[in-house]
Amino acid sequence: MTDRMQTCDCMVRAGLVITQDDSRTVIADGAVAVDQGIIISVGKAHEMKEKFIPRSDIDLGKKMLMPGLVNAHCHAPMSLLRGVADDLPLMQWLEKYIWPIESGLTREMVAIGAELACAEMMRTGTTAFMDGYFHEDVLGEVAESAGLRVVLGEGFFAFPSPFFATAEDCWQTIESHERRFSQSPFVRNVVTPHAIYTVSPELLSESYELACKLDIPWQIHCAESPAETAQCIELYGMRPLAILESLGLLNDRVTLAHCVDVLPEEIELLSERCVNVVHNPASNHKLDSGIAPVQAMLDAGVNVGLGTDGAASNNQLNMFADMRMAALVGKVQAHDAAAVKAQNALDMATRGSAQCIHWEGLGMLVPGASADMIALDTESPNLMPMHNPISQTVYAASGHEVAMTMVAGHVVYRDGEYSGIDMASLQVRMNEVVKWVRERIS
Amino acid sequence: MTDRMQTCDCMVRAGLVITQDDSRTVIADGAVAVDQGIIISVGKAHEMKEKFIPRSDIDLGKKMLMPGLVNAHCHAPMSLLRGVADDLPLMQWLEKYIWPIESGLTREMVAIGAELACAEMMRTGTTAFMDGYFHEDVLGEVAESAGLRVVLGEGFFAFPSPFFATAEDCWQTIESHERRFSQSPFVRNVVTPHAIYTVSPELLSESYELACKLDIPWQIHCAESPAETAQCIELYGMRPLAILESLGLLNDRVTLAHCVDVLPEEIELLSERCVNVVHNPASNHKLDSGIAPVQAMLDAGVNVGLGTDGAASNNQLNMFADMRMAALVGKVQAHDAAAVKAQNALDMATRGSAQCIHWEGLGMLVPGASADMIALDTESPNLMPMHNPISQTVYAASGHEVAMTMVAGHVVYRDGEYSGIDMASLQVRMNEVVKWVRERIS
Repeated sequence: MTDRMQTCDCMVRAGLVITQDDSRTVIADGAVAVDQGIIISVGKAHEMKEKFIPRSDIDLGKKMLMPGLVNAHCHAPMSLLRGVADDLPLMQWLEKYIWPIESGLTREMVAIGAELACAEMMRTGTTAFMDGYFHEDVLGEVAESAGLRVVLGEGFFAFPSPFFATAEDCWQTIESHERRFSQSPFVRNVVTPHAIYTVSPELLSESYELACKLDIPWQIHCAESPAETAQCIELYGMRPLAILESLGLLNDRVTLAHCVDVLPEEIELLSERCVNVVHNPASNHKLDSGIAPVQAMLDAGVNVGLGTDGAASNNQLNMFADMRMAALVGKVQAHDAAAVKAQNALDMATRGSAQCIHWEGLGMLVPGASADMIALDTESPNLMPMHNPISQTVYAASGHEVAMTMVAGHVVYRDGEYSGIDMASLQVRMNEVVKWVRERIS
Repeated sequence: MTDRMQTCDCMVRAGLVITQDDSRTVIADGAVAVDQGIIISVGKAHEMKEKFIPRSDIDLGKKMLMPGLVNAHCHAPMSLLRGVADDLPLMQWLEKYIWPIESGLTREMVAIGAELACAEMMRTGTTAFMDGYFHEDVLGEVAESAGLRVVLGEGFFAFPSPFFATAEDCWQTIESHERRFSQSPFVRNVVTPHAIYTVSPELLSESYELACKLDIPWQIHCAESPAETAQCIELYGMRPLAILESLGLLNDRVTLAHCVDVLPEEIELLSERCVNVVHNPASNHKLDSGIAPVQAMLDAGVNVGLGTDGAASNNQLNMFADMRMAALVGKVQAHDAAAVKAQNALDMATRGSAQCIHWEGLGMLVPGASADMIALDTESPNLMPMHNPISQTVYAASGHEVAMTMVAGHVVYRDGEYSGIDMASLQVRMNEVVKWVRERIS
């Protein structure tokens, strides 16, 4: 020990460290020093050993350490409805199955769905997500207790709704969520109107003002499919992005989920206005919405993140599956095998998504960033041999190679065990809700 | 015990049994009775208990039992090249990376790649696969020793090649493989010319005659991309299927891998001629070949199986990933959210693929079928809740929920352990080859 050595809470060592820093450095035999939930240094393990005196050590052996993935668009509590109805056109799926169930959902059911979603996300390497659903304060409590970061999006369409009598009630609820979690390092908020075709222009503007007042992001489903475009043209004589532009709602506070049906000139507009886009490839395929022109957006300099959407239309909350899907379908969409490369897909799921959810310090392992990281078992046969760590992460990994998930320096999942979720108890409570769901749709 | 009770080798019990029988029956609290590697009965566990006296019991608790998946198109030893080169146009990928490496491959390297491939496939629920590569007798030995079923396809293009001086040498090699494994319940053979644009019409016909003489299937890459079609038109003035038709090579002995670029009238022809088609969705996307019109083929009554292709263009050998991909991309291809339903995708990966590889008794759990089955851990959070077992299998499972893989009544993989593969030894040998590969391409 020398004078120049520094103490820290924890040193995490791994065979490979994918940093996602500005140079996209990958370090063999690397280490990350963590103090008070923040990364203070990243480097070669043998060099880090000379610099730091950690109070605890996590030696991950040959495993590969990387930033926790950020799921930029999710409806977490819908995991309860996974597989309830599939292979149906959107409106039939919504009207016959999803809406009849959702109109009777209670806070207790939302809690159970939220907990299941958190378990799946931590199991598959997601450490932060942005959501949109009802009773989102319940989700905030569940995520905080599970140790996962969440941006709560209390959903709204028109008023009165089953959840709010007036717009004012809704705005007050969002403000109360913001106060309720103001001291939490795990929970933030987003204002998230459902869509242009379900929320009036006046309410869109009013909700955006609320986002400005609270200084939080504003998220909306937008340009999800050609059908949505047709509906917007019928209602307002304009395509979806033109409507937002006319309302002054295209800027860097805004995150648009989906953006499948966008024209080249609209992509230019997204770039000029610094709007954030979340790509949801699995869900867009399952509902036959189409394939978003991701390579064109990247070429135009648009920030693109990645999301799973809800488990009723994916049917996983596994960012590894969506990273792979993004890279694969991006090539067919662009008619170019070199489009949406593995590094692009990983960037979307880490740095791109972090920007979409407006949470600095996520999505990369660099000094000053949050100690949100995951470790993959490189001895899973599908991750061998290790010619290229980025390729293995995007194309070869399933997400179930994740052996450890850490958020803010705390291990929240490791080798099948959760620090903040009791899976046995969750299963018992879940089975009760499953009975209710079956009666509701039968 | 009553007089009517029957002994059997093994009784496998599970919370759910997906039989894939003609009625697609799913049995809750089911059991499968196995004797001498063959399924002798399937039913409710409590009824089976009254009928059979098993010499051994496997109680899988809440797990879900289903037929082992059949990978109908693979290049197993290429797992050594996983991630060597990605995100490149096909010819650049082949000429700069794949071919320079392959021209130097030895039998020892093929053995290592084959063993890694078998490990990944058993880990992710594949119990049989049809292959195409070089030194395939080595693969036969490896698969037999691992306990996995394989149909060997000794690959050929033109002669002389690095592997055969003359066509006669190649035919003799295939015949010797057929003799070598004639008593093996695990190894069969297929005659597999590479493609129409790399093998002359005379050799296609000659190789087909060999397949008839040996009474084994005949497999070829066909209509993989618009580029292949253009090449065939340039070479022979005809589209790929027209060339095969002109040579009398469209019939039920024939299995065509890919079939992406096929016209409606060609789909009708495939149906009339009872030709088998293998869909390879991940690989077709990665190389930007396009999306095969699977729903149209199913509508026309074409038998469609499913394959991973090699790990250099997938980059997994995981049939669960390709089932999901098939169902998701099939909807966008057909512009219909109801196209390529979950049950269709599961049918392709089981019964459809079994027919593609001409191996009766695979792909279903019915009396008389082979005892090739896999068990999924239904307590993985992504498989909860269990509203619909088929949906969970296709859309929600990653393949890494497979907890047990059984072939011919023998457990070949369970909870991370292989009965016939020493992963530690494999890693040591693999790392040597990785060094060689890196030198070769640097």
